[in-house]
Amino acid sequence: MPEHAGRAPFGARLRAAMDARGPLCVGIDPHPGLLAAWELNDDAAGLERFSRTVLEAVAGTAAAVKPQVALFERHGSAGMAVLERLLADCRAAGVLSIADAKRGDIGSTMAAYADAWLRDGSPLAADAVTLSPYLGFESLRPALDLAAATGRGTFVLALTSNPEGAAVQHVGAGSRGSGGSVAQRITAAAADENARERGRYPGESGKAFLGSTGLVVGATVGTAIDDLGLELAGAAAPLLAPGLGAQGATAADLRRTFGGAAANVLATSSRDILRAGPSASALRAAAERTGAELAAELPA
Amino acid sequence: MPEHAGRAPFGARLRAAMDARGPLCVGIDPHPGLLAAWELNDDAAGLERFSRTVLEAVAGTAAAVKPQVALFERHGSAGMAVLERLLADCRAAGVLSIADAKRGDIGSTMAAYADAWLRDGSPLAADAVTLSPYLGFESLRPALDLAAATGRGTFVLALTSNPEGAAVQHVGAGSRGSGGSVAQRITAAAADENARERGRYPGESGKAFLGSTGLVVGATVGTAIDDLGLELAGAAAPLLAPGLGAQGATAADLRRTFGGAAANVLATSSRDILRAGPSASALRAAAERTGAELAAELPA
Repeated sequence: MPEHAGRAPFGARLRAAMDARGPLCVGIDPHPGLLAAWELNDDAAGLERFSRTVLEAVAGTAAAVKPQVALFERHGSAGMAVLERLLADCRAAGVLSIADAKRGDIGSTMAAYADAWLRDGSPLAADAVTLSPYLGFESLRPALDLAAATGRGTFVLALTSNPEGAAVQHVGAGSRGSGGSVAQRITAAAADENARERGRYPGESGKAFLGSTGLVVGATVGTAIDDLGLELAGAAAPLLAPGLGAQGATAADLRRTFGGAAANVLATSSRDILRAGPSASALRAAAERTGAELAAELPA
Repeated sequence: MPEHAGRAPFGARLRAAMDARGPLCVGIDPHPGLLAAWELNDDAAGLERFSRTVLEAVAGTAAAVKPQVALFERHGSAGMAVLERLLADCRAAGVLSIADAKRGDIGSTMAAYADAWLRDGSPLAADAVTLSPYLGFESLRPALDLAAATGRGTFVLALTSNPEGAAVQHVGAGSRGSGGSVAQRITAAAADENARERGRYPGESGKAFLGSTGLVVGATVGTAIDDLGLELAGAAAPLLAPGLGAQGATAADLRRTFGGAAANVLATSSRDILRAGPSASALRAAAERTGAELAAELPA
């Protein structure tokens, strides 16, 4: 595999992790309610205890973990310092980290966000970061390019399952002669990125190629993927799909919803696993149970 | 004026600041290139020196300052600690602060971002925060409501001047029987918020009412405001308009572009003023010069 700054492309690393451990991503979401349920204080020390417990419990089961940045940012710089240590622990444990930050801006400001999350040596460097494209998919260019240069990845918001998202993401659907809905355009742009990556690094023969430009697509979007004409199967995009478990989706729903793209789904569960804590063995068992359900339903 | 947590609504406070000092907002953007030009290191100490110098120089001239969060986040928790101190200094100096963070998420995660930037006692509390609505305007509800409860404000991305933004923001324009373009829908939703605020707190008679739910509209969008049918004049929304100076817009352009909504424009200048540094007197003179240009062109 080609290497960038000492590592393979993110898509190839994620494919290898999913092949080895299955497609489970565990959210590390230190919500105030969960901290209370775990009898931890809602402060930086509580965040640190929570995050380390989750990481240690699921490191052998999950392909990736996804810290929710907002929940660290709530505690200001002290919370962000906890996130830095968590991301370093992920690297040490060999677990892929996806910083769920939903950042987005333009020009040199976007370059600064890329720098924060995707640059070697940055205290907040993760394996991938989630991005929000209200300023246009191309506004994310500095992050897409830095990710490609450092073997890291991005997940761009495309189609989410919250009902109010339709007022932006579905707009343009069915309009003649145009590029289709907003979500469809984002999907097509990510597909183009991944096609270019595949041209540069075709990957090992016989393995399903996965690019480094992913998409966030809710696990509970129902038929909207087809209704809006999203071409997910051909996009070669890792599909970060939140909504498993507490938010209502089963592994079987994922198979039905994603169809021919199901092999590219990284299924994210947060509360459904986290509420099993603070016992490490109970957390591990919850992650293994979810992993087994996914293995039974999604293509290997 | 009604008070929330000891302060008047953000819109009323911004209107008073603009009446007293004019409509200039100075960006606090510690870009690597500016730090180098100021002979500061690209580290937390450099950020701190830069930020304090700008704040002290423009505190008497600007209605508000706008720290660009990405440029602090680049330095991880150490950078965020500098931002915390800068926001505290703004409070002490009586200058309104707008954290340019462009955050956006859903549900309890959005509530966590609101908590970070808009809650009394949060280390990162600012007077207002910029938000990104890819997940739908209504997904921002926790921030809109917390802002209303604490006398703080929001600026929601609506229509930006970067060309790649059209692929999201212009989608839906001209479609019959629908809600119009994405940017138009965001504008209409902010107008509804401000109409509700006006119903609760009509403000002093004779003063032009300004709500607490603002919009980000680029200073160099040209005719797109009219082309897309954005009803800015009736929205009673503070209009954060980046693009003055280095990015190409003059005060006269602002007047032409915003027309009947020009009295609600908070004109943002960053590089054009910042490059006058590190001399405090040169920074102050640059801010005063820009302020005078704005005063000559925009309605008082």
